[in-house]
Amino acid sequence: MSEPRVDVVLKIGGSVITDKKNELAARTQEINRIAQEIQRADLRDLIVVHGGGSFGHPYAQRYRLKEGLKEESQKVGFSETHHVMTVLNGLVMDALVWHGVQAVSITPSSCLVTEGGRIKDFADAPLRKYLSMGFMPVLYGDAVLDTKLGFTVLSGDQLISYLASKFHAKRIVVGVDVDGVYESDPKTDHSSPLLKELDLQDLRKLQVKFGKPTSSDVTGGMPGKLIELVPAVEQGILVTVVNATKPSYVEKALKGDTVEGTIIKKG
Amino acid sequence: MSEPRVDVVLKIGGSVITDKKNELAARTQEINRIAQEIQRADLRDLIVVHGGGSFGHPYAQRYRLKEGLKEESQKVGFSETHHVMTVLNGLVMDALVWHGVQAVSITPSSCLVTEGGRIKDFADAPLRKYLSMGFMPVLYGDAVLDTKLGFTVLSGDQLISYLASKFHAKRIVVGVDVDGVYESDPKTDHSSPLLKELDLQDLRKLQVKFGKPTSSDVTGGMPGKLIELVPAVEQGILVTVVNATKPSYVEKALKGDTVEGTIIKKG
Repeated sequence: MSEPRVDVVLKIGGSVITDKKNELAARTQEINRIAQEIQRADLRDLIVVHGGGSFGHPYAQRYRLKEGLKEESQKVGFSETHHVMTVLNGLVMDALVWHGVQAVSITPSSCLVTEGGRIKDFADAPLRKYLSMGFMPVLYGDAVLDTKLGFTVLSGDQLISYLASKFHAKRIVVGVDVDGVYESDPKTDHSSPLLKELDLQDLRKLQVKFGKPTSSDVTGGMPGKLIELVPAVEQGILVTVVNATKPSYVEKALKGDTVEGTIIKKG
Repeated sequence: MSEPRVDVVLKIGGSVITDKKNELAARTQEINRIAQEIQRADLRDLIVVHGGGSFGHPYAQRYRLKEGLKEESQKVGFSETHHVMTVLNGLVMDALVWHGVQAVSITPSSCLVTEGGRIKDFADAPLRKYLSMGFMPVLYGDAVLDTKLGFTVLSGDQLISYLASKFHAKRIVVGVDVDGVYESDPKTDHSSPLLKELDLQDLRKLQVKFGKPTSSDVTGGMPGKLIELVPAVEQGILVTVVNATKPSYVEKALKGDTVEGTIIKKG
């Protein structure tokens, strides 16, 4: 099978499509709006990945899934975490299919296994075939099996970087709930300046500066995102971080139009 | 990885967990009862597969998915069919997880591709690992990609026979909405006698006798089920067909207790 083309890999943050302050609280209006924006952008070679927000994160954290299998009682937690992620994904797929988008969900835990938390075996024959047939694959952060840990949590951020690198995407669009990447966390430091453009060197410096991810996000928050993006940026893939809670920002970013946010390029 | 053990493969018919007369009509009470029976049976090495009923079938039929990709307009039908199957699976998983079962859904279309309608490449590393870790994998009839047809419909019946044969299961339990296998369709011929025991030779004769599957079931109804079971029965796997709408029948059949129905064995 010839290598399928990917133009853009879009990440929709869990903080955009869920209310992180309340467990299992989907923002269905936001999900619907973003589905409409994806439909209007009308890109053919697009992969969409969404995060876990208040569905995956609280469950994964409660059962300490990221650390791996340590006791039997975590197993039912693995089942629950994967299940709630499929529920959130179902809401996203509902909205996309409702808008007539030829989107098909791909369940990460059904087709890939990680090793020490990193994607190792990704049986991507269906994903490749979906792309070559003009379908839009939709993946998500998931509780996955791990060759060393038993199981762990795979972030949507690792997925976008992996998929964009593997399929030589031109661009990555990351939709978050703030206006872009800031010098420090804009939710605690309101005077922190927005960084409009970053290169690979800046990215590496910021990794240090940001410090530890906040405990509520099992997959690492903004620092986690930036660390994951490094391999893709090294490969020359252009990254745009935009505020997906602002109407039409995702649509514009998908189309490649200029929009407020942070641009990350190799340099 | 060592070959995982499978004791029983359980199929729950779509006619049991949905109302086939109404589109997208889930019988949530039945789903809940069967989840409880699965939990009470407490089998460790169990794979569960469910059908599409009034979720998958009407969509698959409307877009003629089984015949494969013939025109662009079918693609959104593929998206819709897969999506509604994930919704039905979500209801089944909800009930299982609610009852504390360590069940994990495996999305067929995410990990396998068929060739001319038959399972060809099944990337089953996650499935094997789930089994070896003591999880209960749950699969379902799905809209899947096909190397020759573009896409098609994979029946839960093909899945159970494939999985039972591949993992050398001891038994298959098929839960339907009638009391077992009849000489002719008991829904149209009320005096048709129930066949309590069948062997491989009987099975082959019945394949002819039953004639064409009813048009409402894209995957072949009872004749389709029997044809699919042949390879598993040839391998010596014992099949029990029971009425899953009758309380505790599934539970008893899972435990290996005697229960009204049809037993199919090699002979």
